[in-house]
Amino acid sequence: MIRVSIIGITGYAGIELYRLLKRHPEVEIVSLISHTNAGEKLSDIYPQFSGNTQVKLEEYDLDKIASGSDLVFTALPHGVSQKIVAELYDVGLRIIDLSGDYRYKDAEVYEKWYKIKHNYTDYLNKAVYGLVEINREKIREARFISNPGCYPTASILGLWPLVEEGLINTKSIIIDAKSGLSGAGRGVRQLSQFIEVDESVMAYAIATHRHTSEIEYVLSKYSGKEKDIIVSFTPHLLPVKRGILSSIYTNLNKNISQDKLNELYREYYPDDGFVHLVDQAASKYVVGSNYCHLEVKLDSRTARVVVISVIDNLIKGAAGQAIQNMNVSYNLDEKMGLKDIALFP
Amino acid sequence: MIRVSIIGITGYAGIELYRLLKRHPEVEIVSLISHTNAGEKLSDIYPQFSGNTQVKLEEYDLDKIASGSDLVFTALPHGVSQKIVAELYDVGLRIIDLSGDYRYKDAEVYEKWYKIKHNYTDYLNKAVYGLVEINREKIREARFISNPGCYPTASILGLWPLVEEGLINTKSIIIDAKSGLSGAGRGVRQLSQFIEVDESVMAYAIATHRHTSEIEYVLSKYSGKEKDIIVSFTPHLLPVKRGILSSIYTNLNKNISQDKLNELYREYYPDDGFVHLVDQAASKYVVGSNYCHLEVKLDSRTARVVVISVIDNLIKGAAGQAIQNMNVSYNLDEKMGLKDIALFP
Amino acid sequence: MIRVSIIGITGYAGIELYRLLKRHPEVEIVSLISHTNAGEKLSDIYPQFSGNTQVKLEEYDLDKIASGSDLVFTALPHGVSQKIVAELYDVGLRIIDLSGDYRYKDAEVYEKWYKIKHNYTDYLNKAVYGLVEINREKIREARFISNPGCYPTASILGLWPLVEEGLINTKSIIIDAKSGLSGAGRGVRQLSQFIEVDESVMAYAIATHRHTSEIEYVLSKYSGKEKDIIVSFTPHLLPVKRGILSSIYTNLNKNISQDKLNELYREYYPDDGFVHLVDQAASKYVVGSNYCHLEVKLDSRTARVVVISVIDNLIKGAAGQAIQNMNVSYNLDEKMGLKDIALFP
Amino acid sequence: MIRVSIIGITGYAGIELYRLLKRHPEVEIVSLISHTNAGEKLSDIYPQFSGNTQVKLEEYDLDKIASGSDLVFTALPHGVSQKIVAELYDVGLRIIDLSGDYRYKDAEVYEKWYKIKHNYTDYLNKAVYGLVEINREKIREARFISNPGCYPTASILGLWPLVEEGLINTKSIIIDAKSGLSGAGRGVRQLSQFIEVDESVMAYAIATHRHTSEIEYVLSKYSGKEKDIIVSFTPHLLPVKRGILSSIYTNLNKNISQDKLNELYREYYPDDGFVHLVDQAASKYVVGSNYCHLEVKLDSRTARVVVISVIDNLIKGAAGQAIQNMNVSYNLDEKMGLKDIALFP
Repeated sequence: MIRVSIIGITGYAGIELYRLLKRHPEVEIVSLISHTNAGEKLSDIYPQFSGNTQVKLEEYDLDKIASGSDLVFTALPHGVSQKIVAELYDVGLRIIDLSGDYRYKDAEVYEKWYKIKHNYTDYLNKAVYGLVEINREKIREARFISNPGCYPTASILGLWPLVEEGLINTKSIIIDAKSGLSGAGRGVRQLSQFIEVDESVMAYAIATHRHTSEIEYVLSKYSGKEKDIIVSFTPHLLPVKRGILSSIYTNLNKNISQDKLNELYREYYPDDGFVHLVDQAASKYVVGSNYCHLEVKLDSRTARVVVISVIDNLIKGAAGQAIQNMNVSYNLDEKMGLKDIALFP
Repeated sequence: MIRVSIIGITGYAGIELYRLLKRHPEVEIVSLISHTNAGEKLSDIYPQFSGNTQVKLEEYDLDKIASGSDLVFTALPHGVSQKIVAELYDVGLRIIDLSGDYRYKDAEVYEKWYKIKHNYTDYLNKAVYGLVEINREKIREARFISNPGCYPTASILGLWPLVEEGLINTKSIIIDAKSGLSGAGRGVRQLSQFIEVDESVMAYAIATHRHTSEIEYVLSKYSGKEKDIIVSFTPHLLPVKRGILSSIYTNLNKNISQDKLNELYREYYPDDGFVHLVDQAASKYVVGSNYCHLEVKLDSRTARVVVISVIDNLIKGAAGQAIQNMNVSYNLDEKMGLKDIALFP
Repeated sequence: MIRVSIIGITGYAGIELYRLLKRHPEVEIVSLISHTNAGEKLSDIYPQFSGNTQVKLEEYDLDKIASGSDLVFTALPHGVSQKIVAELYDVGLRIIDLSGDYRYKDAEVYEKWYKIKHNYTDYLNKAVYGLVEINREKIREARFISNPGCYPTASILGLWPLVEEGLINTKSIIIDAKSGLSGAGRGVRQLSQFIEVDESVMAYAIATHRHTSEIEYVLSKYSGKEKDIIVSFTPHLLPVKRGILSSIYTNLNKNISQDKLNELYREYYPDDGFVHLVDQAASKYVVGSNYCHLEVKLDSRTARVVVISVIDNLIKGAAGQAIQNMNVSYNLDEKMGLKDIALFP
Repeated sequence: MIRVSIIGITGYAGIELYRLLKRHPEVEIVSLISHTNAGEKLSDIYPQFSGNTQVKLEEYDLDKIASGSDLVFTALPHGVSQKIVAELYDVGLRIIDLSGDYRYKDAEVYEKWYKIKHNYTDYLNKAVYGLVEINREKIREARFISNPGCYPTASILGLWPLVEEGLINTKSIIIDAKSGLSGAGRGVRQLSQFIEVDESVMAYAIATHRHTSEIEYVLSKYSGKEKDIIVSFTPHLLPVKRGILSSIYTNLNKNISQDKLNELYREYYPDDGFVHLVDQAASKYVVGSNYCHLEVKLDSRTARVVVISVIDNLIKGAAGQAIQNMNVSYNLDEKMGLKDIALFP
């Protein structure tokens, strides 16, 4: 059994980790850590756990974690994660960090897009980027995994075969992403009030969203030959709780048929994995699961390929992916504890 | 392993049964039967199963089912279930029927409220009413279980301690129930269009809904001393996919304190079961799970008790309850395969 | 032209008043007053007014209002309204107050249910209760009108004919009300976040909601013979922006047919008014309008009448009703500026 | 007074026309025509009109319309409109056609994208394209106006200044559009059921939607110099009733600052019109109104301009625009009857 602690349990990624890990056959949960709610009962904050658990939340205590845990999931805001992750690393723990703090080798990119300083740059090179489908071999050996962002997960999975095969103009990529509110986190804000969100849609952070840099960085550095990929990324807020749909537009630089495209995607993403090529992608078919559905359409009239990519932002885009990373790094069945099908209808 | 077939797989209760049974450690699914879609791939109808299964839907074939299955779940419209259940019973199969066809011992009640004839009245007495929390002992021995309706489940669980203890005026019960659209089934209708449902609420079938009779029948016949319970039941349609909230109003005929009420409910529904007394009931805390949350408030000013009862209509109100019945009748852990916590946020 | 000021413009009732009054042919809006946002442009807070108006919000200034306005709408939180209304009254202005501060003649009832002291009890008797359909004659003469609460509007309109005619047991009334989020006001709170509200339903303030007392007070004092009416009132929160649906249950104390009931309601509420008897009430058919739809069903089996009453909580339940009061008190066409039909689909 | 008939009253555009025209001070509505529901009362189909009108729907009768009406709005499915419009034209009526049948001068484009034959090609040249903001002068003289599609309205208004000024690469335009369900019309379909739409998002008709051709055609033919504009257009279905948000991506072919862009858009769209440049576009700020909000962002890093354009698809995208066309062609105030502000909150 892997002894696991979760730091940052009361955020949406943290509580989703707990929901999923509770059922994982190889995991024993030892501590749920929350600075804000230390001492409180979990079921007072999240009543869906009423009756199920009298577990109390604890204050962060490095020694206690070090002695009792094998693996720590950190689900903290960016910035806050930097120091805690470094401490956990130094006492020899295995770490899966869900923040944006360790997703780049290059502190400059981080500092430019996140607009804060990175004080633990020595640790950047120790982290392995945890998008299993494109980095599985490195993750197998990893002690410290940096879990991808939600938008980058949907976007990179959709683009990966096209980029790897050199089929598209690397300056032509436009990503129009739509997300549900859980992606905005649990913070109480005017713009997250029901009245502001329901029956509406809006774009935000046009041309400035941090995940732009993660998509560019990963596509540029991790594909076969290093490339210089630039994307336009525009996130939108939808009146749904969960789910990301990314609509990705790319200009082809070679001719390819729809059949060949389908073949290519099926080759990269075999049926027994979490990523499936489908005829009609819709977020309802993946919400509640760790699956990613891709719909790939050749538009020969405009010489473009349009890829629609959907995930559950809290599962494949956060907690589920973190568990998939754990499974791979512990050499377990990659799907262990992640076999849920979307909750539809 | 229990070899299971599901008849009526493409309805919402059927597909939810399949989703849940796929993960049940003691179940092997042998046939998925659909008259309408026989021969089709499941994933063409419900794309959330893409990649997961190439299972095809089959036509109903009694001999094949009889030879290959131990237990059959029938998730058919009322009326249609009558004959098929009788046939399955006659060849010696175990049956859990999710329709309304076998919920009364008394064909007259059925015929009055369902407005169709019952042609298999001999089988009415063979069925055991499958609301585990009030009928567990009988279910342990049962070969043929009639699964309760969704509204009756929420309503009866909320009322049971009050009725059993004789605390309330049995003519005073008013149940104002609210349900999501999945309760209306998969049929395509004007009134189920998004435009008609979204941002609105309405009552329907005032004073005439079939479940009125099920609630009255079960509360009258199954509680300690037979009673003559009459309820006003009004269902409402909410713009949500899943979830029932029943607001139950009753006139007390004895004095009782809020503390005593709480004690009483905790006694009837221990913490390790699926029914929990909570401070604030909300459907979000049970949707995606087999749990029922009850909020019980004494209003001493009006000498009434108000009980709020919430369930997921497709799980505790249908498929989950059916599996709970299977677990009890096979002497398995009652919660096996049903440990999911609500999908919240 | 009536020169109008609105105090408390940035709340939901305030902004709805402004939206509706802008189009009223007999109104000239002179000041929009907001303590919180004084000095700001309205369109910075409510961008739907972009381009339409460069109107700035002002600080409350009694002298300025007194000299420039004929009529003031106060859309302030209860408690806050007490003093300002008294001041406006003393300088001779006409007032329509949307708060709960002046809805009772009896300070005790107010203090008991609102749990704050009333410091301006002398003014209680000066206010006329502004539910036009039951108090039109008094409103015609009124200089100071207290606008009803949203839940009381829906509930009282539904019950009025039954109470006036003495058809029901006055202790048997149960009101199960459902409201959209705009009823909760613009304050930013955890429980009003989209994630908490969407796809869920909950009851709140069971047996303690302030509007209980307003419903009881008005039904008891304003109907033909004074009565002692007690109601159980339970509000619920729905995932919709606007709309109240009240399901009202009453025990008949006389026999009456469905036809007679219909006749009665049509007599009380003629076709050319804002209240209509309909076959199927649903909030979608009134949201965006000042109409109230009533669905009245006799349940002879239980000797009860069930009334379903729907309104737009911000219009007939607040701003629209206030304008209707203005129209009546200025002897204008009662429907002036209020002819909008529900925005459906 | 303009005597108006509406053909196709029970569709969503038809009923919205009626709702808006009822309040228009210069309009007298003479006939509401519906083939499907002829003889029925309007309020039986749309209960929001209960009490308001006993108007009955009529069968189409050319002679009756010709003698009693000045202007006819046709709100019929494409294909069906061809013949009826030609007949109305031949008897000398003024026509505003909301279908796609007369939006191109060129039957070939129509036949290619709509996949049906055009049998009344002689009438194509008689129609004036009714997007007032780009074609006002022609509309002033027009007897027969072809009202634009909903997606083209949002898209063309967003792109117009960039195209007219020659600022962008005419082959680089990508339009990612999101629409609410009312855009799909009143037809009852599996994919429009609440369960299928709620809490989900999907793309549809990728690279094949008819409106692609309308956007290309109008931008190519109507701007200063004829151009050859090709766009990638992808519509998405959102869980909202009303509202379109189009996210438009274009590659600049000249340097321009954000300030200059703002200036340009303000010049094309003055404050007193229906199109406004705003800081944050969101569909909630225009739904219920005839306004279009544009948010324009320069992304100098990628040398792109991103334009977010929002409208109410049934008002500015259909019925409201049709009335605006009527106002212009009758030389009335362009905003007459269209002054509603968005229904928010």
